[in-house]
Amino acid sequence: MSKRLFLGIDLGGTNIKAGIVDESAEIISRVSIKTHRQEGLDAVIERMCQAGREAIEQSNFTINDIEAIGIGAPGTLNHKTGIIIAPPNFPDWKNVPVRDMISQRLNNLPATLENDANVAAWAEYWAGAGKGCESLVMLTLGTGIGGGVIINGRIHRGFHDTAAEIGHMMIKVDDRLCVCGQTGCIEAYASAMNMAKIATEQLQAGRESSMSQVIDAGQEITAKVIEEHLRKGDKFAAEIWEQTCRYIAIGCVNIANVIDPEMIVFTGGMAKAGDLLLDSVRKHFLEIRSYVFSGIVPKLAISEFGSEAGFIGAAGAAKLSRDLGEI
Amino acid sequence: MSKRLFLGIDLGGTNIKAGIVDESAEIISRVSIKTHRQEGLDAVIERMCQAGREAIEQSNFTINDIEAIGIGAPGTLNHKTGIIIAPPNFPDWKNVPVRDMISQRLNNLPATLENDANVAAWAEYWAGAGKGCESLVMLTLGTGIGGGVIINGRIHRGFHDTAAEIGHMMIKVDDRLCVCGQTGCIEAYASAMNMAKIATEQLQAGRESSMSQVIDAGQEITAKVIEEHLRKGDKFAAEIWEQTCRYIAIGCVNIANVIDPEMIVFTGGMAKAGDLLLDSVRKHFLEIRSYVFSGIVPKLAISEFGSEAGFIGAAGAAKLSRDLGEI
Repeated sequence: MSKRLFLGIDLGGTNIKAGIVDESAEIISRVSIKTHRQEGLDAVIERMCQAGREAIEQSNFTINDIEAIGIGAPGTLNHKTGIIIAPPNFPDWKNVPVRDMISQRLNNLPATLENDANVAAWAEYWAGAGKGCESLVMLTLGTGIGGGVIINGRIHRGFHDTAAEIGHMMIKVDDRLCVCGQTGCIEAYASAMNMAKIATEQLQAGRESSMSQVIDAGQEITAKVIEEHLRKGDKFAAEIWEQTCRYIAIGCVNIANVIDPEMIVFTGGMAKAGDLLLDSVRKHFLEIRSYVFSGIVPKLAISEFGSEAGFIGAAGAAKLSRDLGEI
Repeated sequence: MSKRLFLGIDLGGTNIKAGIVDESAEIISRVSIKTHRQEGLDAVIERMCQAGREAIEQSNFTINDIEAIGIGAPGTLNHKTGIIIAPPNFPDWKNVPVRDMISQRLNNLPATLENDANVAAWAEYWAGAGKGCESLVMLTLGTGIGGGVIINGRIHRGFHDTAAEIGHMMIKVDDRLCVCGQTGCIEAYASAMNMAKIATEQLQAGRESSMSQVIDAGQEITAKVIEEHLRKGDKFAAEIWEQTCRYIAIGCVNIANVIDPEMIVFTGGMAKAGDLLLDSVRKHFLEIRSYVFSGIVPKLAISEFGSEAGFIGAAGAAKLSRDLGEI
């Protein structure tokens, strides 16, 4: 018998990724094209379909062989209705029925719409770093901090589809202002971008560091630059890294104190540092968490699928929705 | 056909409550006796059984009519093995197989052990304020802040049985020290006891308030005292109340940003204030939560079962475990 095939499409602010993935999470094809969001809604929807068609073509199957489509997209969105409500990265999109627009353009295949971080978490749970885990939380440490929550074999979307907004968990209220308007959000301290921003602020204020050369050369401080200088022995880079990992660990402690997942998986810019991230977060977690639970740490891991987790998890979410009889 | 009957036993630091509850959450009998924890482990276990036997006697049924026993107890504990590991309130208890000890003394009835806040949450979900909800979080605002999490018809215990420790969610790290050793835990600001403590500190430092009379009379400031003076128009009492509700709202925002429950239910000392609590928490929640989700607030409610939620939910947990074939 032939394997069941699913099309996953992952809409990002810069790139649209798509691929055909079979029921065993085997990747049959992969495509990445630019989003060009400035071209507007209709053009982006058409490009999502184009990426899907190219993925099918490259797989050497036809659209009739595909069982269902999974779409991962930035929130806010409504999973049940398949509507993207108001994504901060696509300010001209308001209540767009993306799921049905894509389905109609692709042979009316059954389709499901999920939050992008949720599908990435699902990919890791389904076939990646968290395979076999009971429950898993993913943290994307990029421009912001996103999150996905998997509990008991289900994507946990929450009652209003607003679960897993881990970046806006407040850990130091009345302190640093977040882009979201709240104060003290973990994202304001510990996203790759904000770590770099905090480092830049302190370098400009005169902190001594080998990273000053980077600023003097007119280049930007990034998470990668901090990691490189840390590995070369720069003390300030090490201090910034540790401070950031401590804030990430505080977020992990809070996650553990609410849902106590078996595993926390990291992805995005900072996760490329691998053990440098995991070891530091684990150390701080153990130091911080209440004595009552001392020694209890979730498994900490780096994403296996990296930037491909989105389309893989979207395809996996399509399989899940089919298996549950939802689509 | 006769109704299925369950015995719920709720072990507290001061009282042991027990009752017979039927499959429809109807309370057939209720018993409350002192814990006398200073008498030691064996005496307390025997008193738990005594409370259970009295509940059966009062119900006019016999032990042979009871299908199963549910036990609610303070953590830390292991649900699968039925062992209480190291409860802060019972410092001489270490790895006590409470479930089997109780079962053996009560006709070897099937028994299940759950965290006390989890069973209270389960009572509200099963038959109380949260009946019909998809998901629910309970916050107990007492000496500390406890929590229970119900997701998709299941008590969410977490992988290491340490979920729902909401009181130790860090919302203002590097600020106020919590009894648990962490800094900035919500419990350190917003439990009924710590609200009273913060008010007392400020009154002793000279803040003007009608509550000064209470201190001058050698009496203690409690949540009830603050509520009374607030209702009589005392400005400082109102300020302390609002500040506390703001911290509770921050905790609710964080809960919403992780699991987005349909409802948050309050119980314990502060919950007796009813709408005074709910209205203030709702107002602060709306002010605080990120603009992206503005207007989305979980349903906020006061516990229906109050201090009886423990044994009712324990009985309900026994029914759940039987229905799932776990016991």
